[in-house]
Amino acid sequence: MSTFDDVTEQVRRESALTEEVIASFAGSTDDRFRTVMESLVRHLHGFVRDVRLSSAEWDEAIAFLNKAGRITDDHRQEFILLSDVLGVSMMTVGVNSPPRSRATESTVFGPFFVEASPEYERGQDISRGMSGMPCYVHGSVRSVDGAVVPSARIEVWAADDEGFYDVQHADQELAGRGHLFASSAGEYDFWTVQPAAYPIPHDGPVGDLLTAARRSPMRPAHIHFMVSADGYKTLITHIFVAGDPWLDGDAVFGVKSSLIVDFFEHPATSAAPRGRRLDVPWSEAVFEIVLAPVD
Amino acid sequence: MSTFDDVTEQVRRESALTEEVIASFAGSTDDRFRTVMESLVRHLHGFVRDVRLSSAEWDEAIAFLNKAGRITDDHRQEFILLSDVLGVSMMTVGVNSPPRSRATESTVFGPFFVEASPEYERGQDISRGMSGMPCYVHGSVRSVDGAVVPSARIEVWAADDEGFYDVQHADQELAGRGHLFASSAGEYDFWTVQPAAYPIPHDGPVGDLLTAARRSPMRPAHIHFMVSADGYKTLITHIFVAGDPWLDGDAVFGVKSSLIVDFFEHPATSAAPRGRRLDVPWSEAVFEIVLAPVD
Repeated sequence: MSTFDDVTEQVRRESALTEEVIASFAGSTDDRFRTVMESLVRHLHGFVRDVRLSSAEWDEAIAFLNKAGRITDDHRQEFILLSDVLGVSMMTVGVNSPPRSRATESTVFGPFFVEASPEYERGQDISRGMSGMPCYVHGSVRSVDGAVVPSARIEVWAADDEGFYDVQHADQELAGRGHLFASSAGEYDFWTVQPAAYPIPHDGPVGDLLTAARRSPMRPAHIHFMVSADGYKTLITHIFVAGDPWLDGDAVFGVKSSLIVDFFEHPATSAAPRGRRLDVPWSEAVFEIVLAPVD
Repeated sequence: MSTFDDVTEQVRRESALTEEVIASFAGSTDDRFRTVMESLVRHLHGFVRDVRLSSAEWDEAIAFLNKAGRITDDHRQEFILLSDVLGVSMMTVGVNSPPRSRATESTVFGPFFVEASPEYERGQDISRGMSGMPCYVHGSVRSVDGAVVPSARIEVWAADDEGFYDVQHADQELAGRGHLFASSAGEYDFWTVQPAAYPIPHDGPVGDLLTAARRSPMRPAHIHFMVSADGYKTLITHIFVAGDPWLDGDAVFGVKSSLIVDFFEHPATSAAPRGRRLDVPWSEAVFEIVLAPVD
């Protein structure tokens, strides 16, 4: 029963609604807020119009968000996971860390950061009894021009060899995370355990979404770094373990080839770095960090 | 320090990420799901790229969604409110109810619907002691071709004269809502109370958003209708009270001029419809409902 006039009228109504909603934000005196809301409204409306979203699909979207809200707490961040699996997190990382010759690339922040991590001296073991092969990580912090960056703050967090972060364990004891400061010569080192590949938490609505897409929830093994120093942009990144089978299928699109690092395996030895005596094999990773100056 | 090559590389990386995320949904065998996710990813990525979303803004967005999740429960639907104030609900209504000559227009569903409402006989009072001027609503249900639609199910819900729905009161007793069936001649009538304009719940993150935009949370007075009959599209709509000062500034963009109805005020009388004897003034609204057949 649709006539040509009906179709024309429909297009007119849809465009008019978008303009009406955008105009409702015109009263704000915050230019940036208006810019962000205008783009958000245009894209959300564009999505509904492009796919001709059905009422049932809208109901599903609301139910999805409600479920995500219900499962979220201090240690479960379903909205971050949603942003991660849709590549929105990685796109945000991307627009905020444009290529700067030589600077270490950024990747996703993830949902497992904890504000108040313990402080360690260089060379200490941050694993606090986490299970896994001992792993020695070291390197230096430099600027894109090659100059030493002294005393950078290096925050580290990683999963154990079963793929769980400390905050996912029932006891909630912090382990496998901490911060330390590089030396005045820019050098840093610490012991932890070699991380394992793991699935992102997938017993919630984001997991259901991955199942519907026949996508794996796995992330390749990695160690999170956040490195800050006065005068430099804070670097949020990971190092990935070379050879991990999930490097080509990261559920959150976080892998960059420049961040894949060899974790050399050493036999059991009585003379590991920092005076450790180990009767088990251990691994070693070198990660040279290059910071970009603040613009 | 950005060179031309850096900028080219940045554009390439951003586009490549969007394509990678879209490709991750290619394994689904559900064509519609793939179509919806592709458009969602393109628009979300487009938003982040267009506004060059900062990390701090992404943090704010996640915090907003977390807050919305925390405040949501069976009787508080913050994600519906969010969809409403961004015009996403009304756009969804729009794409699903294209202009059909003579069919009653649709509007937003809103967050105050309750699944199991009481059933009433025609002519009964559904207000159950809600405060407000008695209001008699009547009309008929017809098809777009003018034919009577017999025995349609008419679901109604509305706020009291202070602008609160039953579910917003502490006692949670259902009032001012119910369903009845039109007669075999398509006629229906019921008593309720005249609704008042009211603010949408604005003590949560959606309220903060409206405040930031200097937008009012008010909605003009209205009565919700959901009308269903075999062979016809279910109609979800309101009638709005003519003369309401908020008709031009509905917080959720739901007003359509065809849905504005005169609520005639009658003096106190001993002979109101359906044998009611009223010693207070009462109002009367006529709402002729026109349903579109299923395509």
